[in-house]
Amino acid sequence: MTLDAGMTEFAKLWAEIAPIGRADSGGYLRFALTEPELTLRDWFRAQASARDMLVTEDGNGNLFAWRGEPWAPGTVLTGSHFDSVPHGGGYDGPLGIVSAFLAADRLEKSRRIGIAAFVEEEGGRFGVPCLGSRLLTGFIKPDQAAALRDRDGISFEEALGARPAGPEPRIEQIAALVELHIEQGRALETPVGVASAIWPHGRWRMDFTGVGDHAGTTRMTDRRDPMLTFAFTVLAANKEARLSGAHATMGRVQVEPNATNAIPSLVRGWLDARAADTATLDRVVDEIVRKSTERAGRDGTALAVTAESVTGEVAFHEELARRISSLLGDAPILPTGAGHDAGVMSAHVPTAMLFVRNPTGVSHSPAEHASDADCEAGIEALAKVLEDLT
Amino acid sequence: MTLDAGMTEFAKLWAEIAPIGRADSGGYLRFALTEPELTLRDWFRAQASARDMLVTEDGNGNLFAWRGEPWAPGTVLTGSHFDSVPHGGGYDGPLGIVSAFLAADRLEKSRRIGIAAFVEEEGGRFGVPCLGSRLLTGFIKPDQAAALRDRDGISFEEALGARPAGPEPRIEQIAALVELHIEQGRALETPVGVASAIWPHGRWRMDFTGVGDHAGTTRMTDRRDPMLTFAFTVLAANKEARLSGAHATMGRVQVEPNATNAIPSLVRGWLDARAADTATLDRVVDEIVRKSTERAGRDGTALAVTAESVTGEVAFHEELARRISSLLGDAPILPTGAGHDAGVMSAHVPTAMLFVRNPTGVSHSPAEHASDADCEAGIEALAKVLEDLT
Repeated sequence: MTLDAGMTEFAKLWAEIAPIGRADSGGYLRFALTEPELTLRDWFRAQASARDMLVTEDGNGNLFAWRGEPWAPGTVLTGSHFDSVPHGGGYDGPLGIVSAFLAADRLEKSRRIGIAAFVEEEGGRFGVPCLGSRLLTGFIKPDQAAALRDRDGISFEEALGARPAGPEPRIEQIAALVELHIEQGRALETPVGVASAIWPHGRWRMDFTGVGDHAGTTRMTDRRDPMLTFAFTVLAANKEARLSGAHATMGRVQVEPNATNAIPSLVRGWLDARAADTATLDRVVDEIVRKSTERAGRDGTALAVTAESVTGEVAFHEELARRISSLLGDAPILPTGAGHDAGVMSAHVPTAMLFVRNPTGVSHSPAEHASDADCEAGIEALAKVLEDLT
Repeated sequence: MTLDAGMTEFAKLWAEIAPIGRADSGGYLRFALTEPELTLRDWFRAQASARDMLVTEDGNGNLFAWRGEPWAPGTVLTGSHFDSVPHGGGYDGPLGIVSAFLAADRLEKSRRIGIAAFVEEEGGRFGVPCLGSRLLTGFIKPDQAAALRDRDGISFEEALGARPAGPEPRIEQIAALVELHIEQGRALETPVGVASAIWPHGRWRMDFTGVGDHAGTTRMTDRRDPMLTFAFTVLAANKEARLSGAHATMGRVQVEPNATNAIPSLVRGWLDARAADTATLDRVVDEIVRKSTERAGRDGTALAVTAESVTGEVAFHEELARRISSLLGDAPILPTGAGHDAGVMSAHVPTAMLFVRNPTGVSHSPAEHASDADCEAGIEALAKVLEDLT
């Protein structure tokens, strides 16, 4: 590959995908299996082809590019995902895929590697994060995944064009998985770090049901307004998380009918909660639901809670993390509150993650950023690790 | 007109429009100048034509059917609106138009009456309630109305197909306006009542701005989460209204990016507030904004408040109300918290309203209902009033 004058390999490749799915906000709308993400998949195929890598699909929406036989014993897998949260940053996901191709360029052609583009990592379209890796590992049943629907009522099966294929038994033959990802907090102060663990985390849908009525004419004492119970729960979740050193967020809400002059009949809020250990997470969520249910009694509303996805603590392969850290000049080893496909895969494959520094720590926002120099350091580190492991 | 066996004139005419714009919820999606409301306008033209009434448009989106010369001095105007709130009931608006045609059938042909179908009474599409009557009376400027946009970015001018024409000077020649409407609370215990006044009311848009970030990785102490400020405001508005005997509702909210795993960058909530007098309304809204601004300071968020529409107290024509009440056998005279085109028109024309009983008081909801017998009593009362005034 030749370099444009003044542009690094990274900057050049990054510029190819930067416009795809970018919204006026500066953030991205790259939902799984929608037009921008399908364009990125075509780009993935072209990159693989330019490197004489064979592309395979697993029937679950995940894409792979291989140097050597697909799923051959001893292969090291790397990669990440293309999809974004609504108006998310461009690094979360794609950085791991672009870095994988550029790291592959620095390895001898004899090294057996695979590059993965996992589908629906964010859960931004069908509600279940890491859907692709959950299907690949059998963590979610194909029938259950097939029936998931996006906000327009389109099922995952319809979007995929087929019933998901389910688990791939050959993942057990993979020697290791290394996912490179932009760091999502401010904890990393060097260009590259190594993951120790992912906090247990989950998302719970909370349906607050009341009685729709006229905002102008209904006496305050006659109301059964579910917006009140929702609002109380937002504040209770924040308080419980602060008291427990956990994280709790209610960043998504749907209201029916959502009209200025109507008391809602339904407010649906989603609770995202995470903590350093499962016991704390369970206690925080139980306490939020208990308080919210009590308040619903006072508001004359009803609350139904559905756990949409709950993931236990993931401790990455300790020996592998230490080996990688030492290979990278004692790179820091740190935990994260964010879920990743690598976390799902770690139950089946020795798994590690490389984090690239994020100066502001902002993520899931157009303001997410990593410097070109740090991205370059990430590629260099990934190449070193892949060379060591293959 | 002939009657189907066993169906009243009202039930027959009502059945013609009942399916138009009905959603699976049982409520209606009849937004101004969208397909279902345009179908209702065609139905209006057909009803007028069947009665040899001339149909005119005022260039603001309002439709009129006339018996006698349009806008002739001494004409009595009646009617209401077709548009609904999202998933609203079928009576709010259309009952006044259907009753107007059926009352016209009971009058001698020599009586000069006009039947109005006002556009965008609910403000459900372009955000400003009573938009049609506000344009007709010059209460809102055509340029300002033209620029209003719906949730898909379509302007009122685009929807109308032309710049709004603005005020109609001939309204000053109208002898009286009588709008029949379903009652929206539980205060009316007889089939028909007469309006005394409309509470002062308004809608305020509250933009809560924070910093979008990752829900999993951002420490609680680093957050600037506008959902917290919004939630606090929902509860504060409810409390202030209860303390002051006013009504306050936050039934509509928009969140950006509205993703489960992202702290929002923006939460936009609408406050609907109403009170028996302007001083109380002002005090309640000021107090909500003061408390919300204080909380925004603690949350590290910002609050911008825009008054989208504020309507002072409307006292209907007292003598007219007394005359109508006495004509209807001392029908009860009562105030309402709901805004109406009649309220806007009352600054220019002697105006009265007839209310038809609503047994549960539920409104702006699929559960809104009036019995056929009460609707029939409403038509009879309207015919009596029109006969008396023309």
